[in-house]
Amino acid sequence: MTAFQQETATDEEIAAEAALFTPFTDAVRALVDVTIRTEAEPQVVREAQAEIEAIVERLRARQMPGPYGVRFRPNGTRGRNWGNAVMGLRNPIAPPLDIRSDGEGRAWSDFRLGAAYEGPPGLVHGGVISLLLDQVLGHAVSTSGRPGMTGTLTIVYRQGTPLGDLRCEAWVDRRDGIKTWGKGRMLDADGAVTAEAEGIFILPRWARDLDSWQAAAEATEAG
Amino acid sequence: MTAFQQETATDEEIAAEAALFTPFTDAVRALVDVTIRTEAEPQVVREAQAEIEAIVERLRARQMPGPYGVRFRPNGTRGRNWGNAVMGLRNPIAPPLDIRSDGEGRAWSDFRLGAAYEGPPGLVHGGVISLLLDQVLGHAVSTSGRPGMTGTLTIVYRQGTPLGDLRCEAWVDRRDGIKTWGKGRMLDADGAVTAEAEGIFILPRWARDLDSWQAAAEATEAG
Repeated sequence: MTAFQQETATDEEIAAEAALFTPFTDAVRALVDVTIRTEAEPQVVREAQAEIEAIVERLRARQMPGPYGVRFRPNGTRGRNWGNAVMGLRNPIAPPLDIRSDGEGRAWSDFRLGAAYEGPPGLVHGGVISLLLDQVLGHAVSTSGRPGMTGTLTIVYRQGTPLGDLRCEAWVDRRDGIKTWGKGRMLDADGAVTAEAEGIFILPRWARDLDSWQAAAEATEAG
Repeated sequence: MTAFQQETATDEEIAAEAALFTPFTDAVRALVDVTIRTEAEPQVVREAQAEIEAIVERLRARQMPGPYGVRFRPNGTRGRNWGNAVMGLRNPIAPPLDIRSDGEGRAWSDFRLGAAYEGPPGLVHGGVISLLLDQVLGHAVSTSGRPGMTGTLTIVYRQGTPLGDLRCEAWVDRRDGIKTWGKGRMLDADGAVTAEAEGIFILPRWARDLDSWQAAAEATEAG
C-alpha cells in the first residue's frame, strides 16, 4: 500500500479547489454521457475529439505523478478522497455518491445513474451495483468507529435495477474481534429492493496498533 | 427490462462508427484521468471547462433519447453493447475490457487500470474489482452456451490490488437446471491472485422459451 499522504493544503485552499473542480468534473461527466449517446455528424465528432485532445494536453502540462490517493488531516478531521471511483469529487467515473451516516453504523445515499452505468438494456450493470454497495457498506463500517478492509462481499440480485433515481442503504450487523459484518441494499425509485449485500470487513494488521483509527478508517473505507 | 432492440445498421456503418468513436472515447478517457490528476492553474481549468461545456452542447444537439442499450443482430451474430459500463467501446467509464473466450466456458481479459479506478491509496477500488469480475464471469457463462443473469456474486479479497496491469480470468464451474456456477479471479502484474469470485447465474424466465439463446446471452451477460 502507498504510504499515508498528509494533507498540506489549508482549509481555504481545499475550499477553493472544491469550488474549481466540482463544476469542472460535472462538465466531464456530461461529456461522458454524451460520448455514449451523441448522434452528431462524424465531422462534429472529429472536431470535438481534436479539441478534447488539446484540452488534455494543456491540463497534463502540470499533473500529479500518480493517482490522487487520500490526503489525511493531521488533526483527525476527515481527509480527501477526491479521486475515489465512487465518491471522488474530482473523479468523473464517480456518480459521485454523497454518503450520509449517523456515525453509529448506518449509512445511506440517494443518487441518479444515467447511461454510463448501463449493463443489460435500460438496467444498471450488476457490477456497478456491487461497486456502489461495497462503498456504502464500507462507509457504514468505517464511520461506526471500527474500520476494516473488505474481506468478503456478497451481492444477491433480486430483480433488475432500472437506470434513474436510486438509493443505497447499509448498516453494521455485528462485530467479532477484528471482523465487522455490514449489510446493505439497493432500492429503485419506487422503493423496491433490487439487490442485497453482505460484507465482512477486517481490520488490517498495519492498523491494529495505531493510536487513532481515524486514518485507518479513511484508508480502508473503499477496500 | 427495455424491449430488445434490433440492429438496423449495416456492417459498413458499424465499422465506420467504431472507427469514429474508438479514438474519440479514448480521448475522453484521457480527460477523465487528467481531471483527477491535473495541477494546472485555476484559469486554465476554468477555460477548459467552458470549452468542454460547449463541446457537450454541440454533441447533445442530436442524441439518443435514452441509454445506448444493446443492439441485437437478426442473424445471430454478436450484437453491440457499446454503452456497457465495463466493455463499452463508447463508454469512457469502461477501461474497456476486451474479454476473450474459448467458447466453452473460459474467459479472460488483460487490461490496465489508472487513477480513475482508485479506492484505497494506490490500490484498485474493491468495488471496481467486483464490477470487472461480474462482467468476466458473466461472459464465461454466456459464451458457454447457457446464458444467465447474475443471481449471487461473492468476492473474496485476498490482498490489495495495485493500480496498473491486471488480468481477470473466469470459468464455468458447474450447471444444474437453470443455474450455472461461474468462478474467477483477479491477478496483479506479478501473477499473484488478489481476489477470487464465485457467481450463480440464472436463466431468466423470459429467456427459457426462446428459440435461440444468442440474444438472451448478450442481454444477460452484464446482469
